[in-house]
Amino acid sequence: MRISGLSAQTGVTVPTIKYYLREGLLPEGERSSPTQASYSEKHVERLRVIRALLDAGVSIAETRRVLATLDDPPESANDLLGTAHAAITPEVDETLDLTDAERLVTALGWKPGMCDVAVLNAVARAMQGLESAGFVVPESVMPEYLASMRRIADAEIAAVPSESAEAAVRYVVLGSVLVEPLLLALRRVAQQVASGERFGE
Amino acid sequence: MRISGLSAQTGVTVPTIKYYLREGLLPEGERSSPTQASYSEKHVERLRVIRALLDAGVSIAETRRVLATLDDPPESANDLLGTAHAAITPEVDETLDLTDAERLVTALGWKPGMCDVAVLNAVARAMQGLESAGFVVPESVMPEYLASMRRIADAEIAAVPSESAEAAVRYVVLGSVLVEPLLLALRRVAQQVASGERFGE
Repeated sequence: MRISGLSAQTGVTVPTIKYYLREGLLPEGERSSPTQASYSEKHVERLRVIRALLDAGVSIAETRRVLATLDDPPESANDLLGTAHAAITPEVDETLDLTDAERLVTALGWKPGMCDVAVLNAVARAMQGLESAGFVVPESVMPEYLASMRRIADAEIAAVPSESAEAAVRYVVLGSVLVEPLLLALRRVAQQVASGERFGE
Repeated sequence: MRISGLSAQTGVTVPTIKYYLREGLLPEGERSSPTQASYSEKHVERLRVIRALLDAGVSIAETRRVLATLDDPPESANDLLGTAHAAITPEVDETLDLTDAERLVTALGWKPGMCDVAVLNAVARAMQGLESAGFVVPESVMPEYLASMRRIADAEIAAVPSESAEAAVRYVVLGSVLVEPLLLALRRVAQQVASGERFGE
């Protein structure tokens, strides 16, 4: 199909598609003449993934790295998650002290060397954000955060598809990013329900 | 203290402080002369909250609304959470079909009218994002998301401070926003730990 067909099928405007082509997010179509290119179902699918990532708040640069991981995954299933997370995690801040973060994630079953420094960094940065706002997570709440996140991760990793490497890559890479807005939205609904039960008339 | 002292105490540069003043995030200091203003501990604290919100990815406009909720909270404790959530949720998309979202959140204990349409909208948008990327949350995983978010919300709402309305407002407003990066980072660490246990050597 031509670029206009790709636009019609995905609802993404032609100028936006051209922007994704220039940014290297979407591969070029096959040249059918010097001024025309032809696009396939692969482009439709890729365009949907790009839209979903950008809509979920992933930046253009991060989206490029996530797509690179999808296209050229690491060989080991265990490295996959680290690569996917590195693609969407801001650069490591070497000056950040990880001691408190490491102590906290021990409750998740973490042991030294068990995960990317980038995600430990993200924990430390989040803790720093809370601290600098003077916000203390109550002692009765933190264990619930840790236990819930471990249960969620166990369920997610147990469900990594085994029928093909491609399906596993897609599941891990997209699942870790695209599920985040869902989890946060569910937490807010649950908070309002719990608040209504405690404080409502 | 002068603006330079405020800068020294918070690590926020003078031009940035002036920007927050212009944007209405930080209240003006008390004029001590036509060209000088004096700032207090209240400004230090407010500046820390502003930095924490912006660092957590909250936009300038959303930060302004969160601060307005802190300064002028609704009377009922139950309305507080809705107001806080509305401040940080994108505008409601009237065209979004909420049927699937409503069906999903029933598992959280949700009943019609029980929460802001803005947060239901966020659930629907997140589901749409997953669907448009062709990502299906496995049937064994979704119940864990719902159960975990409900447990987290129960622990959080049970811990709303009762010693003062101000403490409750601060806890609810900052807790719902600032904890999000921590939860997401903990999920990633837990995923890598669980993946290491399943796929690692």
